[in-house]
Amino acid sequence: MAKLSFEFPDGNVKDFDEGVTTEDIAKSISISLAKKAVAGKIDDKMVDIDLPLNSGGKIEIVTKDSDDGLKVLRQTASQLLKAALADQFTNIQFGESTSDEDGFFVDTDKRETQVSADELPQLEERMHKMVKNNVQIERKVLSKEDALKQVDGDPYQAKLVNKLAMNDQVVFYQIGDYLGLGEGVVLPSAKQVKEFKLLSVAGAYWEGKSSNPMLQRIFATAFYKKADLEADVKQRQEAKERDHRVIGNKLDLFFVDPKVGAGLAYWMPNGATVRRVVERYIVDKELANGYEHVITPVLMNLNAYKTSGHWAHYRDDMFPPMDMGDGEELELRPMNCPSHIQIYKHHIRSYRELPIRIAELGMMHRYEKSGALSGLQRVREMTLNDGHTFLAIDQIQDEFKKILHLMTEVYKDFDISNYHFRLSYRDPKNTEKYFDDDEMWNKSQSMLKGAMDDLGLEYVEAEGEAAFYGPKLDVQTYTAMGNEETLSTIQLDFMLPERFDLHYVGEDGKEHRPVMMHRGLVSTMERFIAYLIEVYKGAFPTWLAPHQVKIIPVSMNKHGDYAKQINEKLVKMGIRSSVDDRNEKMGYLIRDAQTNKIPYTLVVGDNEMNSNSVSVRKYSEKDSKDESFDEFTKEIQNDIDNYSRGNK
Amino acid sequence: MAKLSFEFPDGNVKDFDEGVTTEDIAKSISISLAKKAVAGKIDDKMVDIDLPLNSGGKIEIVTKDSDDGLKVLRQTASQLLKAALADQFTNIQFGESTSDEDGFFVDTDKRETQVSADELPQLEERMHKMVKNNVQIERKVLSKEDALKQVDGDPYQAKLVNKLAMNDQVVFYQIGDYLGLGEGVVLPSAKQVKEFKLLSVAGAYWEGKSSNPMLQRIFATAFYKKADLEADVKQRQEAKERDHRVIGNKLDLFFVDPKVGAGLAYWMPNGATVRRVVERYIVDKELANGYEHVITPVLMNLNAYKTSGHWAHYRDDMFPPMDMGDGEELELRPMNCPSHIQIYKHHIRSYRELPIRIAELGMMHRYEKSGALSGLQRVREMTLNDGHTFLAIDQIQDEFKKILHLMTEVYKDFDISNYHFRLSYRDPKNTEKYFDDDEMWNKSQSMLKGAMDDLGLEYVEAEGEAAFYGPKLDVQTYTAMGNEETLSTIQLDFMLPERFDLHYVGEDGKEHRPVMMHRGLVSTMERFIAYLIEVYKGAFPTWLAPHQVKIIPVSMNKHGDYAKQINEKLVKMGIRSSVDDRNEKMGYLIRDAQTNKIPYTLVVGDNEMNSNSVSVRKYSEKDSKDESFDEFTKEIQNDIDNYSRGNK
Repeated sequence: MAKLSFEFPDGNVKDFDEGVTTEDIAKSISISLAKKAVAGKIDDKMVDIDLPLNSGGKIEIVTKDSDDGLKVLRQTASQLLKAALADQFTNIQFGESTSDEDGFFVDTDKRETQVSADELPQLEERMHKMVKNNVQIERKVLSKEDALKQVDGDPYQAKLVNKLAMNDQVVFYQIGDYLGLGEGVVLPSAKQVKEFKLLSVAGAYWEGKSSNPMLQRIFATAFYKKADLEADVKQRQEAKERDHRVIGNKLDLFFVDPKVGAGLAYWMPNGATVRRVVERYIVDKELANGYEHVITPVLMNLNAYKTSGHWAHYRDDMFPPMDMGDGEELELRPMNCPSHIQIYKHHIRSYRELPIRIAELGMMHRYEKSGALSGLQRVREMTLNDGHTFLAIDQIQDEFKKILHLMTEVYKDFDISNYHFRLSYRDPKNTEKYFDDDEMWNKSQSMLKGAMDDLGLEYVEAEGEAAFYGPKLDVQTYTAMGNEETLSTIQLDFMLPERFDLHYVGEDGKEHRPVMMHRGLVSTMERFIAYLIEVYKGAFPTWLAPHQVKIIPVSMNKHGDYAKQINEKLVKMGIRSSVDDRNEKMGYLIRDAQTNKIPYTLVVGDNEMNSNSVSVRKYSEKDSKDESFDEFTKEIQNDIDNYSRGNK
Repeated sequence: MAKLSFEFPDGNVKDFDEGVTTEDIAKSISISLAKKAVAGKIDDKMVDIDLPLNSGGKIEIVTKDSDDGLKVLRQTASQLLKAALADQFTNIQFGESTSDEDGFFVDTDKRETQVSADELPQLEERMHKMVKNNVQIERKVLSKEDALKQVDGDPYQAKLVNKLAMNDQVVFYQIGDYLGLGEGVVLPSAKQVKEFKLLSVAGAYWEGKSSNPMLQRIFATAFYKKADLEADVKQRQEAKERDHRVIGNKLDLFFVDPKVGAGLAYWMPNGATVRRVVERYIVDKELANGYEHVITPVLMNLNAYKTSGHWAHYRDDMFPPMDMGDGEELELRPMNCPSHIQIYKHHIRSYRELPIRIAELGMMHRYEKSGALSGLQRVREMTLNDGHTFLAIDQIQDEFKKILHLMTEVYKDFDISNYHFRLSYRDPKNTEKYFDDDEMWNKSQSMLKGAMDDLGLEYVEAEGEAAFYGPKLDVQTYTAMGNEETLSTIQLDFMLPERFDLHYVGEDGKEHRPVMMHRGLVSTMERFIAYLIEVYKGAFPTWLAPHQVKIIPVSMNKHGDYAKQINEKLVKMGIRSSVDDRNEKMGYLIRDAQTNKIPYTLVVGDNEMNSNSVSVRKYSEKDSKDESFDEFTKEIQNDIDNYSRGNK
């Protein structure tokens, strides 16, 4: 019998007989390793643990405690789920099934009806039965022709067979009566798939394209240990409670409908209110800090993006240009910098004017793949809280400090504390990869670092992570889903002033080249408000809440006039207040105000009406307190004026 | 000799010998008519008064006092101008020359240099000399071949020859040495062209296309009577002083640069400030009046505009669609209605919610021909103060009154009084041209009329001017240039609710079709602010002024601190104030503040500093008055709070 030679990760080489399995090899090393082993990896390609091997190479034993090991478990679970589905629903068709670090899913199409969340417990039961019976999972290799016969009548599976066939061979797994297409390495039996959970169902387009049929995707997860599963399910629950898409729907803040445009957000009145408050806050803050706000077109001649270099390097993220006739091609802008450069260039600038700070709530369009789109976090149309400072190189440190100061003030007003700074330099070993001006780099990098140190701020330094055109500071935070995200950024740019040939007249009467500083305080309105929704779990502080006060009369007949009268006074103060005049039980109305996370619920009855007072119940507080109406107006005004940071 | 038969406008028919001229015919009627006659019109086609006619037909004698007569005079003047230009500049080339109700122009290309405004007096002198000498204008008909030879070396004229040639014949006129292409009917000699004026020069693209060379256009006008010319020149001067493009440039409010995008406005900080104040005012006003403000995407799936009918009927005014892959075609919206319909459809609506008022500062894009673009008045990207009310048919009158009430309140705050109402009905004789629902039309038209009468508003009724989809009210006003413009509109729409299958659940539990009401209070931000600039001649009332206060210290050294201190107080009050710290003479700084039309200039010196007062000079007032700083803050706050309608 021929010998196969295997090289282990530690460099050792061992020979085995042809036909040996990964399991055999693991056993030859140690029993404990064999117990943990769930698959092999030969020359970086995963194989079933019981697959007889017919060639040697670099080998790795995949164990339960690795990411790959988890993937094998989840792939096995997805195969069991398909078997359970095939058992429960005659003629069900299957799209893709995939497992990854987040869990696994199976796409299904029952045609007339769809799998519903109600049916998940039944499916789980079927799977548990297979696990209990330790159903065997038998590998079968079919020719492509036989494979296509096997999946006959299921167009999705047929397409997958064509995709997965290698050398005319396609792997299937037999689980009981079900012979299903293999889409990854699995375990030889069901027994280890004890700790799994079917989580939810949702529509998903076949191949991710909105022009294709909508399938029903079953989301699920699996772990080797019960404690891991429980922790994961709990975390998912928490994330779901914070998920801005879920809260956005519950509180009627926004929606996205791929039928009228993938990645294009519709802000309902509640969401638009929050956004309006944020926008006015940030514009006023910037105006008070020496920024000049402008409004520039969302469209620009494509030539400007050729000059800026975006068209050459960023085209994949841009929308298709529009031919306007007259030789004009217009482009939806992916960035606002060239627009603000037009503003700068509209006048001859003097050193006395610098730094010139141009700001805008600038709408931009970026082409994100439809699969990457997510609620307000990843959209195709967005409005950036953008700003560009044009300044002399010696002004960099001062301006950088000013922006940082402004930034931390803004964070404080929004009660944001979960962030860290990341300072990115060019790679000192690869300086030729960057804009060519050593003095500029050295000077500016040390100015940024100096500013951070002067202000006593902690930061991470990242060599080689600067942009091509200059060093930068990012402020990083985390979404409810645990993804790292950039909240704010300050980027120096030596390149665009060069490309657009910008000047200012110096004290010497000669032309000098300014530096540009790109900065975003709170990123895009879309992303920032998605972030705020998750930070606050939808319970917006009073100054941001879409509805600030709900007034509930004990009896509309008896106390309705009083309720309307105080409501009118509040509205005149600019407070978003309304009377709930629905003919429902008071308990229901109070609960409803709480469900809508309204900061103040005022109940008014005989007592309140006679003493010109209100019974105030703050959101999430169990008890209410009686206050004169005047006291209440002072309290809420103070609450709003102080950005709800507590009365000061 | 053959006889030609002519029919006069009164129906009379007379015969004349072949070769008769319009002048002969006029003389045959009366001497006084012959004196006024300047051209003929045979079968609606203008002919030179001295052209020998060789066929009969319907004839009209064109006289000096008609629009056509004026056109003939101006066309003659343009021919004289070309002769003068050819005389003054060797090798000058000519683009088009045209005369119309507004005057006449000649397009020129001197290649290396261009005709400048300084050269106009010289050209006028040359023309006056021709008039004085009563130079003859001799008609010459050339074959196309000879004509092309005649204009050899002038590519524009060659193209025009090809365009104007009829039956291989092209008309030229000999004026002294100059043999120039005829572009319309002219007088036989120069003597009547006494009252003309060359007005201005400006660049104009050949054939109106920005990809073509830029020619220099000489604008001019001419009249038969001196008084008419003087009145016209005076009116032009006034219009120029009001022209929002001129003021917009002087006050640094906005600019449009065809190189980065035709019809796309850049709002400089000053203009953006005015717009921001207007936007916040209008949003707050609408919120206080029961509107819910939303924010919806500027892009939408093209299918929505197929459903709405815009793609079928309005495509020429729309931007080209963008292919996004995945079978999705996106379109920059030309209107916001389909977007607000998405908001309406996002929930099941009940009769208890009606009327639902959805409002937005909605950005839209419309493809205007580049020749039609003008400053902020005609642009391709615009933001409409849009609103759509969804309501039951019985609510029409009430809602219409509410909108009218809101509208007149808004006009009052902006001090707009020069407007009139125009109520448009369907044509009762052509009801089949309109959306088919007689009851709906009759009921709604009488509701609109009833509302106007109830409110005691005067209005014009226009039968047959309704939209296809419903009756409407327009509020009409005039621009500085005298063009009629729609300031606001309220339009009923029975069609879109049908096309998008909109419903609400009635008191009876059944589905009913709502009516839509489109309304714009102040039209687009672009057009409205262009209008305001012209109404105010750039001297914005305090609440709208980009800079409200300019503080001028008598000596920066001695009074600079005091100036800064009061400035800081004003800025904290939210007032747009700044200190002029330039090292210039005080008289210059005060004049500069007046040139920039800043409402309040505060001069502070020893006296003011010692008594904590200010010397206040209001815009356009010659005298200043001394006030305590506290008095001044009250005055300006009152001014702003009352929309500068005078202190109350």
